[in-house]
Amino acid sequence: MIITVTLNAALDVTYRVPSLRPHTTHRVTHTAERPGGKGLNVARVLATLGLPAVVTGFVGGPVGGELRERLAERAATYDGLLTDALMPIAGTTRRTVGVVDDTTGDTTMFNEPGPTVTAREWGAFLERYRELLADGRTSAVALCGSLPPGLPVGAYAELVREARSAGVFVLLDTSGEPLRRGLAARPDLIKPNAVELTGLTGFAEPARAAGDARRRGARAVAASLGEEGMLALTEEGAWRALPPARLAGNPTGAGDSAVAGLLSGLAEGLPWPDRLARAVALSAATVAAPAAGEYDPAVYAELLGQVKVVPAEPGAAD
Amino acid sequence: MIITVTLNAALDVTYRVPSLRPHTTHRVTHTAERPGGKGLNVARVLATLGLPAVVTGFVGGPVGGELRERLAERAATYDGLLTDALMPIAGTTRRTVGVVDDTTGDTTMFNEPGPTVTAREWGAFLERYRELLADGRTSAVALCGSLPPGLPVGAYAELVREARSAGVFVLLDTSGEPLRRGLAARPDLIKPNAVELTGLTGFAEPARAAGDARRRGARAVAASLGEEGMLALTEEGAWRALPPARLAGNPTGAGDSAVAGLLSGLAEGLPWPDRLARAVALSAATVAAPAAGEYDPAVYAELLGQVKVVPAEPGAAD
Repeated sequence: MIITVTLNAALDVTYRVPSLRPHTTHRVTHTAERPGGKGLNVARVLATLGLPAVVTGFVGGPVGGELRERLAERAATYDGLLTDALMPIAGTTRRTVGVVDDTTGDTTMFNEPGPTVTAREWGAFLERYRELLADGRTSAVALCGSLPPGLPVGAYAELVREARSAGVFVLLDTSGEPLRRGLAARPDLIKPNAVELTGLTGFAEPARAAGDARRRGARAVAASLGEEGMLALTEEGAWRALPPARLAGNPTGAGDSAVAGLLSGLAEGLPWPDRLARAVALSAATVAAPAAGEYDPAVYAELLGQVKVVPAEPGAAD
Repeated sequence: MIITVTLNAALDVTYRVPSLRPHTTHRVTHTAERPGGKGLNVARVLATLGLPAVVTGFVGGPVGGELRERLAERAATYDGLLTDALMPIAGTTRRTVGVVDDTTGDTTMFNEPGPTVTAREWGAFLERYRELLADGRTSAVALCGSLPPGLPVGAYAELVREARSAGVFVLLDTSGEPLRRGLAARPDLIKPNAVELTGLTGFAEPARAAGDARRRGARAVAASLGEEGMLALTEEGAWRALPPARLAGNPTGAGDSAVAGLLSGLAEGLPWPDRLARAVALSAATVAAPAAGEYDPAVYAELLGQVKVVPAEPGAAD
């Protein structure tokens, strides 16, 4: 089974409005809610792929209660593959509000910062996390998203170290200082996007930046480059995975689908090129789906055969 | 005591962002939540003025639970003056999200439509409403805001008729077709703003429109005209109440404060000019307050002495 950690889980609320006009009043024509936060998205895709996933992190207050209800509704459709191991805290889980403009199709996001997590709650989480790592069935852990207020900036570094001590493969998908600190603890894989990679290394060119990220501590880097697919620099080689065609749609959750693709491929013992093909096809299928962060398995199956994986140019891996 | 009816209550969520940029992602810097919906605002101002108020209407789901919690927190500060008589329904109470742009100070609103109310729930509400009207302590009822999905468009007309049968003064503050239908049931007072009044009557000139609204069924009309204060056409005369000076601020809730001012003056047996002065001063104090829909009693007291009430021009009442 794969553990996904979402320290700053969210209830994702989506509003549709006919047209977004700043500083006016809008009547929302359609509302949708779903359990959100990057690790929850990853777990949902894993379960859809047929792999058991356990979600952990923090949840609290009435919004946290709503999130768990929605998660339980989803879990019921996955035949026991999706397990809620979220830890209750005193603070209230955040919401994200996405406003979709029906005229342009564009989305405007408002992300609440999240609850303050106390030192005692963080300590209790670490205990729970160690128990999950020690479960013999755990093959990998994905550490996903931003840190809520109150947690030390080195929180992910600590979680990476614990996973490595337990001999569990650890993927880190975050940004900014938590990513920088996390790298120093030597995660097995990071999956930054182009902006995160440049923010981390200062290099705009992805191959150069990815190489630098490895030198900073990542055993492997799989960079998601939007329409240009994915670039992977690993101990076994370097590859580019190219999506079949430019797809219109909503990129929300595409990176999380890529993480699920990489981890599911790892769990099934697939070689790197196949893991990358899976990640890029899942990502593209997520962009193409009408609902943010969802994907159509039939579209995924079709796209999977069309992804091209090629060895990366010689300069990429240095 | 005064009953306020909010058929489409809301949890009002306010976000502050450094600057609103459509189609980008915003980190919310500050979040606030309060029980919302026009009748709840009116009741809160009444309680602040020292008058007992009972809020009723519909509430449901996890968001409804949050609303009641917040309402109980408020009620605890009002020394028993604010009573929650909301009726639970199966649907989920709506949220409104207001995004305040810290650069311009402007607010962009997103209003969810609200839960669908069933015929059975509406029937149960009518019974509860009749009981509240029959309570010997009830002096007035305020019917406030939009109708949630599922209710008949003549819902307010029915509530007006019930109040009149019970001999209870009834104020109607809504818009569109529910206002048009409600008028036919002859409410004692309506409090439209300029836009609502023009929408109802087709006349842009407030005095002419207010006269027309009386002919359509309202015993009295107190029109809130923003910076131009209030125009009242009643059986006892016609007046204009002028605010002391142009006030910068957030107009959210100003109309609800005006309703509370009118009803509190009525409950205390004040003549019309004093009721209007109170409504205009409360409204101005609400605009001037930093938090949307709140007001500072000291500012109110100061402004009250500065409101000018003058007989309206002869043409106004015809």
